[in-house]
Amino acid sequence: MNHDAPTSKSIGSDRKTAPALAPLFEARSVAVVGASDNPARIGGRPIAYMKAMGFTGALYPVNPKRTEVQGLRAYPDLADLPGPVDLVVIATPADAVEATLQTAARIGACGAVIFSSGFSESGSDGAERQLRLQAIAKEGGVALIGPNCLGLFDPHTGVAASFTTALEGGAVAPGALACISQSGAMAAYWLDMVRSAGIGVSRWISTGNEADVDVAAALEFMAHDERTRVICLYIEDIKDGARFRAAAIAAREAGKALIAIKAGRSEAGAKAAASHTGALAGKPEVYDAFLRQFGVIVVRSLTEMVQVAEILLNRQVPTGDRLGIMSVSGGAGVMLADEAATAGFSVPPLSPDTGTALTSVLPEFAAAQNPIDLTGSIVQRPEGLGTALRIVAGAPEIDALVLFIGLMHSIAEPLADAMTALPSEIARRVIVVWMGAPAQAEQRLAAAGLTVFNDIPEAIAALAAVRAPLRSPLRGRMPDRESEATPLAQFQTLSEHAAKALLSRLGGVSVPAGRLARSAADLAPELNNGPWAAKLQSSQMTHKTEHGAVRLGIRDHASLAQAVDDLLAIATRLEVSADGVLIEPMQSGVAELLVGLRRDPQFGPFLVLGRGGTAVELEPDTRLAFLPLSDEEIVAILQSLRCAPLFSGFRGRPPVDLTATAAAIGSLARAFATAPEVEEIEINPLALPAANAEAGTVPVALDALAVVRTS
Amino acid sequence: MNHDAPTSKSIGSDRKTAPALAPLFEARSVAVVGASDNPARIGGRPIAYMKAMGFTGALYPVNPKRTEVQGLRAYPDLADLPGPVDLVVIATPADAVEATLQTAARIGACGAVIFSSGFSESGSDGAERQLRLQAIAKEGGVALIGPNCLGLFDPHTGVAASFTTALEGGAVAPGALACISQSGAMAAYWLDMVRSAGIGVSRWISTGNEADVDVAAALEFMAHDERTRVICLYIEDIKDGARFRAAAIAAREAGKALIAIKAGRSEAGAKAAASHTGALAGKPEVYDAFLRQFGVIVVRSLTEMVQVAEILLNRQVPTGDRLGIMSVSGGAGVMLADEAATAGFSVPPLSPDTGTALTSVLPEFAAAQNPIDLTGSIVQRPEGLGTALRIVAGAPEIDALVLFIGLMHSIAEPLADAMTALPSEIARRVIVVWMGAPAQAEQRLAAAGLTVFNDIPEAIAALAAVRAPLRSPLRGRMPDRESEATPLAQFQTLSEHAAKALLSRLGGVSVPAGRLARSAADLAPELNNGPWAAKLQSSQMTHKTEHGAVRLGIRDHASLAQAVDDLLAIATRLEVSADGVLIEPMQSGVAELLVGLRRDPQFGPFLVLGRGGTAVELEPDTRLAFLPLSDEEIVAILQSLRCAPLFSGFRGRPPVDLTATAAAIGSLARAFATAPEVEEIEINPLALPAANAEAGTVPVALDALAVVRTS
Repeated sequence: MNHDAPTSKSIGSDRKTAPALAPLFEARSVAVVGASDNPARIGGRPIAYMKAMGFTGALYPVNPKRTEVQGLRAYPDLADLPGPVDLVVIATPADAVEATLQTAARIGACGAVIFSSGFSESGSDGAERQLRLQAIAKEGGVALIGPNCLGLFDPHTGVAASFTTALEGGAVAPGALACISQSGAMAAYWLDMVRSAGIGVSRWISTGNEADVDVAAALEFMAHDERTRVICLYIEDIKDGARFRAAAIAAREAGKALIAIKAGRSEAGAKAAASHTGALAGKPEVYDAFLRQFGVIVVRSLTEMVQVAEILLNRQVPTGDRLGIMSVSGGAGVMLADEAATAGFSVPPLSPDTGTALTSVLPEFAAAQNPIDLTGSIVQRPEGLGTALRIVAGAPEIDALVLFIGLMHSIAEPLADAMTALPSEIARRVIVVWMGAPAQAEQRLAAAGLTVFNDIPEAIAALAAVRAPLRSPLRGRMPDRESEATPLAQFQTLSEHAAKALLSRLGGVSVPAGRLARSAADLAPELNNGPWAAKLQSSQMTHKTEHGAVRLGIRDHASLAQAVDDLLAIATRLEVSADGVLIEPMQSGVAELLVGLRRDPQFGPFLVLGRGGTAVELEPDTRLAFLPLSDEEIVAILQSLRCAPLFSGFRGRPPVDLTATAAAIGSLARAFATAPEVEEIEINPLALPAANAEAGTVPVALDALAVVRTS
Repeated sequence: MNHDAPTSKSIGSDRKTAPALAPLFEARSVAVVGASDNPARIGGRPIAYMKAMGFTGALYPVNPKRTEVQGLRAYPDLADLPGPVDLVVIATPADAVEATLQTAARIGACGAVIFSSGFSESGSDGAERQLRLQAIAKEGGVALIGPNCLGLFDPHTGVAASFTTALEGGAVAPGALACISQSGAMAAYWLDMVRSAGIGVSRWISTGNEADVDVAAALEFMAHDERTRVICLYIEDIKDGARFRAAAIAAREAGKALIAIKAGRSEAGAKAAASHTGALAGKPEVYDAFLRQFGVIVVRSLTEMVQVAEILLNRQVPTGDRLGIMSVSGGAGVMLADEAATAGFSVPPLSPDTGTALTSVLPEFAAAQNPIDLTGSIVQRPEGLGTALRIVAGAPEIDALVLFIGLMHSIAEPLADAMTALPSEIARRVIVVWMGAPAQAEQRLAAAGLTVFNDIPEAIAALAAVRAPLRSPLRGRMPDRESEATPLAQFQTLSEHAAKALLSRLGGVSVPAGRLARSAADLAPELNNGPWAAKLQSSQMTHKTEHGAVRLGIRDHASLAQAVDDLLAIATRLEVSADGVLIEPMQSGVAELLVGLRRDPQFGPFLVLGRGGTAVELEPDTRLAFLPLSDEEIVAILQSLRCAPLFSGFRGRPPVDLTATAAAIGSLARAFATAPEVEEIEINPLALPAANAEAGTVPVALDALAVVRTS
């Protein structure tokens, strides 16, 4: 950075703690390089949009061929501008971008938005050109957006450093909803949809190729942005998992809600993974678990995103699972109850007090039921709706109320009157489904902060989506970088006995007291009191049972010797190297878990917990969570499994001590997180003893595999 | 029926084979009793609507207080009409309905629509009044719609025997989509939504209290109605299961598609059922299985219903699971692929031929991929879209193509030109998702028979919904009424050994060769070669294992005698009566099933098949299907279970002979269907031997219970 050049850097905060995006969104001076007099051209649109939006700062078209662009004085070069510039928009062909960015840095611009394509998206030459841009930006202290992006937009300031056609459709109101998108097209559709829904926007950014500012950096900015209350994200890939994680936690701590679409949910998982953990934790599963664990609401479409955003912006998050349902149609009431039950809400009976109060506006037979059928009385006395809503939405036995209306155009105005007159603490608890609603009534309700849906399933789905994060208390800072994977390591798979030795070292869970026999002659004479298990040990064989390389329930020394001979013969026949035969006393538990520990290069170490045994292949019942995790969080994960009834005394079996189980797993997980030489551990099964077992309640790893780094 | 009165009954067909609804929808003369001069009143709306729709038949307002109603000559009484009347609309208070219906019958009306409420929905007096209406209708040969209904409507004929406010919104086009609804409100919302979507309607009926014409009768009519191609149903309860089943099959055979909402999906299941079959087959599950088995597409909302109907009306049902995806946005293409994968579609690579052909309109790097990214080339050459669609939608490796467009208002017209010019065999394979579509382009595409969605998930969900019935080949006539339940029977639960004796009688599956010991002294001396299972037999104990009343793996006579003593002591301690102890040789199978057979009072006998053992309590994996079923259908059900991998050699186990399994279950099911004295059978587990087992492949019922009628 050239300190001699004019600068307005003071607007921004320190780059290390938060990206200097504020001076971009709040730029008081914007230059457009490659400016066009044609407001429909890429280089013309930002100027046209900013003029239309009443941007009050300095706007400098840069075009060596013109003295005037769209009525503004044009400058031949960035270096010729009459004053300092906060933000430079670059709309030139790719080959002119580098020099322009250098000039921008030299004149002290805080940020640059590069629309131009022809960089990393277009092959290795482009990738090299992009690396040079990155270096210039870093060197010059310029926050760089793009290249190959739609830019950024802020309706509060009128900074529209974008050529998106979505801004053609009319004014976007300033508001509290932010957008961060890795796809320009999605950002454009989002903007169009949000404007149509009448929702106000705080900040909008398309990050493009992310040479500098990436989705995590943008999220970090939004997390601290006072104008933003709800943040929408379209994500294809998160490069900096640690920064994203910290930013997501910061956003949640600042009371902001996050909603994301993650594209690529169906990508093929890790191919031919040796462990179940690997097979179960493909990239889509890792992303999904990562986003949800740190409080992001994951949705499947822009439509759902905007609906969920609306409930959040209206502060209509239900405080619990108990729904009141009020409907002008009995059938719609039943359908709402169906959807509510499917989504995990309850539709409890109303209290006698509520029922009695309701008789002031409803016939006795209709009151005190849930769903509440408004019957014909609503047509006779539409103003009674307000009273009914106050009574039910204010009732202590209800956390949120869904009101269903269909058509009713002739009384739409008095109905809207009744609803818009609700005090805000009641209105926050009322979600409206109005099928075939008159547009005007819908707009009045939206303006009054009541979210209106046009059919039933989307209303319940949105309510369920905003409720979900309350149920994901899992959190924690990512373990230090120092303990993490280095990408160029070599890996080695350990055989069972070596993996169990590693488990013993790491601590937490227990392993059976086994011995490795290299031949039948090797067996100690005291090995007579069975039952024993004998298992061939070879790092080249991960599915021992399928090769008949496991013998169980061996009772005496002679049978054991025979088993050792047989198993070693299998190794010879299959031509795999064998370390010997592992002899262990037979053990079993009340229930069996799969416990996996693994490292993701972007998101760090994680734990996979699930039902163990062969069930993991037939019907996986697992959950994935990133470390660190408290013992309480591990208990919560175990209790969220479908097989959880097995832990609490299923069909007359004794229960399991979940606290002791979680303490053991938690201890192992902590040891794993700080043992960078261990790449992966999988225990299947981990046998859980009965809570009152004489031998103690520490779970035992009956089988295990591990992968370690050997570089 | 009074044959002296004027009549037009000849229009209708015989009541026994198809309900005489044609003369109602196609009435040439309609009387409205309780006619109002006010077109906004219930008695005024049908007249106003029929006038507005250009009904060309005779329209007779009946009102003793007026000589003219809405410009038409009014008559004091039905008996005074100048000519015969096909359809009488009754809009009077409840107490005048009976006499009016009697007159209608006397003058030979084919049908009557009764709007009036105050019948079975309002208590026992009303129910009695309704029974009298039913008797009059039956006696007089009048097809009665209602009471307490919104009536019927036919845009082809202009017969609008309805007071629904949904007809206020403008003209409804005649078309091929029918509606049968048990809720008037839902019927109204449906009509409003269908009209807004620009879809034409064939017939529309709200059945109300169903004193006479019920949903099954209406379906029977629509199944044979030439104007109708797709039938929408809103169902709360089906009274006549056999008629509905036959009508659904007839509709499918006539090439018509059925789409239903079943309200009450979340109703509590059978309480405290002794069998798993009972617990798993609650009324919602029975309804769902019944509808799907007979080809009905079950949806969750009116919005989804109308979207699915549109695809069906446009004949855009995919011929297979292979989707081509073409998108103007890479991100949207990935999101489409995500949804497609979730819904069970594949997105296969394009063939080299298709890829080569595409290079005529697309850059080489974009062609031959699936999803296909249309890139910027579409903006330069929108007319190229037509070529691309022809190439890909016509490719043999693709069954259907989803095209994604977002915004693009500036080239919307040429894009629509390209799509509307597609030949119909190509257009049938193209589903369009257009986010932020200009209304005019959307209307043009709809008019050309291309279904347009506004976001991704709904498009894929609708495609998946219309594809589903292709996968449900299950069909068959309901077993004769004679073999079915009589409602007043008494029931008795049999103990295991009695249930197994019943199974032996019915045939199909095998049972272990057991003997009942009433005391240890009862044991034959040759019972020495174990292992044996010993099980306490008491019809008062359905969960033997939880009471410790099962002993397994007994090897010799002495242990067996001890087990018998122990088990009988348990019965004494628990104070339950015991028939003795069942001694059986231990048997096991490669896999274990649950097999349930039961009778539903509305829908007849059904089979529940699923994974057996304790899995049924932890994670039920079952399917329910109505009898009769062919052996092939039973194989298909087994293969559709999540546990199906267990049948085909899971983890080195031998496979199971599914044909032999299905033959045994099918034989038992047929015997059950014709044994009305047996109310319910449940086998859990049914052990399936290995396909190559020496002892044969007939499955063995290891445990069983049965309920029989004792009246």
